[in-house]
Amino acid sequence: MSSPGGQDKTPGFYCPIPIQQYQTVLLAHGGGGRLTHELIEKLFVPTFGSTALETRHDGAVFELSGQKLAFTTDSYVVRPIFFPGGDIGSLAVNGTVNDLAMCGAWPLYLSAGFILEEGLPMETLWRVVRSMKDAAEAAGVELVTGDTKVVDRGKGDGIFINTAGIGIIGHDQTISPASVRPGDVLLLSGDIGRHGIAIMAAREGLAFESEIRSDCAALGSIVAGLFRENLAIHCLRDLTRGGLASALVEIAEAGRLHIRIDETAIPVREDVRGACEILGFDPLYVANEGRFIAFAEPQDAERALAVLREHPLGRDARIIGYTTAAPPGIVTLKSRIGATRIVDMISGEQLPRIC
Amino acid sequence: MSSPGGQDKTPGFYCPIPIQQYQTVLLAHGGGGRLTHELIEKLFVPTFGSTALETRHDGAVFELSGQKLAFTTDSYVVRPIFFPGGDIGSLAVNGTVNDLAMCGAWPLYLSAGFILEEGLPMETLWRVVRSMKDAAEAAGVELVTGDTKVVDRGKGDGIFINTAGIGIIGHDQTISPASVRPGDVLLLSGDIGRHGIAIMAAREGLAFESEIRSDCAALGSIVAGLFRENLAIHCLRDLTRGGLASALVEIAEAGRLHIRIDETAIPVREDVRGACEILGFDPLYVANEGRFIAFAEPQDAERALAVLREHPLGRDARIIGYTTAAPPGIVTLKSRIGATRIVDMISGEQLPRIC
Repeated sequence: MSSPGGQDKTPGFYCPIPIQQYQTVLLAHGGGGRLTHELIEKLFVPTFGSTALETRHDGAVFELSGQKLAFTTDSYVVRPIFFPGGDIGSLAVNGTVNDLAMCGAWPLYLSAGFILEEGLPMETLWRVVRSMKDAAEAAGVELVTGDTKVVDRGKGDGIFINTAGIGIIGHDQTISPASVRPGDVLLLSGDIGRHGIAIMAAREGLAFESEIRSDCAALGSIVAGLFRENLAIHCLRDLTRGGLASALVEIAEAGRLHIRIDETAIPVREDVRGACEILGFDPLYVANEGRFIAFAEPQDAERALAVLREHPLGRDARIIGYTTAAPPGIVTLKSRIGATRIVDMISGEQLPRIC
Repeated sequence: MSSPGGQDKTPGFYCPIPIQQYQTVLLAHGGGGRLTHELIEKLFVPTFGSTALETRHDGAVFELSGQKLAFTTDSYVVRPIFFPGGDIGSLAVNGTVNDLAMCGAWPLYLSAGFILEEGLPMETLWRVVRSMKDAAEAAGVELVTGDTKVVDRGKGDGIFINTAGIGIIGHDQTISPASVRPGDVLLLSGDIGRHGIAIMAAREGLAFESEIRSDCAALGSIVAGLFRENLAIHCLRDLTRGGLASALVEIAEAGRLHIRIDETAIPVREDVRGACEILGFDPLYVANEGRFIAFAEPQDAERALAVLREHPLGRDARIIGYTTAAPPGIVTLKSRIGATRIVDMISGEQLPRIC
C-alpha cells in the first residue's frame, strides 16, 4: 500500500495521518479546531467508514423499529473540576444532552463512565455525582447505566467522565449540515464566550470586576420549542470547543456553502469582551456550553427568533447572518469597522481542557 | 440529615460512603469486587435513583416506541495497551458488545470516546483504531459516533477509551438477576482465567511454556443462539473484573438466592492454573473477556448446553452448578477435595487495570 503520509514501520502498516508532521498526539488534536478535524477526517471516518460518522454531526441518527433515534457521546476532562456556573458533572450531563438536542432529538437517557485517579477525595466524587443528578433532573433525562474505573496515582487527573446519550426524534426534518440551503438565515441563541472565560479565570485565579459564570445549560427544551412550532430548521450546532467560528467553518465545509456573518450582530458581554482583550482571545473562538446556532428557512426565521427569545436561555437571541451558494466552504465576517475577512478554524489550541 | 458515614464539611453536605474509612478513591474501588459494589450501592444508585440502575444489570433495558432496547457503557484503561490475544481497542468493542449480549440484546451500534495523552504516538492510536474496526466487523456492530479529548502530558496514560452501546431485544424474556429461580441450572461457556493471566504476563514480562492469550471475544452470536432456540434463560453475566466469583456473588445477592457450584466442573487450562499458582491468584477471581454464565430453567439446561457447545466460543461449556432458595445471597463451592466453602467477592484489588 502506498503511504503518502505515514511511515511504514510494520510490514503492511499504513497510517493516514501524515505522521512525519505529527508523530504524536498534540493537545491541539483535542482542541476542536483544524487538527481535531484532521484526526476525524483522516483517521476515524475512513477507518470506521460509517455513514452516520460521515454526516459530521454532533451525533448519529438512525431508525430502530420505525422510531428515529439520536445517539451521541462525549468525554469530559475540564480543569478545574469546579468553576463558576458549573462543574465537570453538570457539564457532562448538559454537553451530551446538547449534542442530542443539536440532532433535533428529545434527550431521554444517559450513561456515565467514570475514570477516577487513585487518591481522588471521595467528597469530590460525591459533589460531582450530586451535580450530575441535579443537571439530569433539570434537563429531564435519566442516568440509567454506568461504569467506574480507577487508574493508579499519576496516570489520570482526578476525574474524567464520559457520558453517552439517547434521544428520540419526533419530527420529519433532517437536521444536518447537508440540509442547509443558500438563503438560510443564521440565528444565534445568545451572547458568546462565557464558558471559556469562566474556566480560564478559575484556572489562572483571575478576578474580574464581576464574576463571569459559565453559560453551561441544557438546550433540550429551547430546541424542542422550534420543532413544536413546526418551523423549518435545517441545522443546529452548539458552540463548544473552537467556539462559534469553528462550528460555522465545519458547517460551511460539510454543507458546501458560504456563510456570511455580521460581527456587530454577535452579542458579547462587556466583561467577557474585556477579559478576551486582556487574555488575547477572540470571542469567536471561545467555547460556550449553553449557546447554539440554528439555520432556518428565510420565511420561518423571524418566528424562530421569537420562539428562542421566549425561552430563558434565548433572551438575547439574534439573527447574525445568512448563507449563499458561493464561494462554498467559506465563512466571511463583516467586522465592526465594515471590513470583510475570512473566518478560519483555530489551528492550534487556544485553551486546552475546556470541556 | 444525619450522617452515619460522611463528614459534614459543607453545610447540608452528606456523603453516603463512610469516608472516615475511605476518604479517597482506592484502586480497589475500580476492581469489580466489594469496594466497587459499595461505591455503586451507596453512592451511584441512591443518587441517580434510576430503576434501571437498581436492577444491577450489565446495562439498562427500556422500551422506546414499543421496541425493547438495551443501553450500556464501559471505559477501558487496560495496561499494557497491546497484549496477547487483544488490545485496548478490541477490548473496548467486545466488552461493550458483551454487556449488551448479557442483557439479552442483539448489539447494533457503538459510540467511542477517546481520552488521549499528549505525546501518544500517532501510530499507536492508528493501530488501536484499526483493531476497533476489525472487532466491530467481527461482532457485527457499527461505530456510529465518537469524541476525542486530549489531556496534557502526565495527566493521562497514553489512551483511555469509553464505548457505549445500543442493542435491540427481540424476545419476551426478562434477563436479570431478579429472574433467577430456585432450581435454575448454571452454565459456564468455557475455561476461565485466560484474560487476566495474559495481561499479567504481558505486564510483568513473564514467559510461560505456551503463550497464554486473552479470551477476548464478542458474545453476541453465541447468546443469540440461546434465544433463537427459545430456551428459558433467566440471567446472563460475563465474567470480567472480579471473575466468576464476583459475578456469582452479585447475582446471589441481587436475586436473593443461594448458588452452589462444583469446583471440579469449572474448566481451567493447565497452563493458566500453573500461572495462577505461581502468581498466587485464584482462577475464580481472574478476569475473562469472552466467557459468561447463563442461568437456565432445568428442563432447558441440556439443550442450552448443546447450543453453547455448537458455537466456537462455547466448545468447553459445562454445567457448573444450580440455585436453591436458601440460604439467600450466598455462593458455596464444593472444592476438589469435597469440602464446601463460601465464595465471597474479592474485597481488595487482585489485578488493577485489567480492562
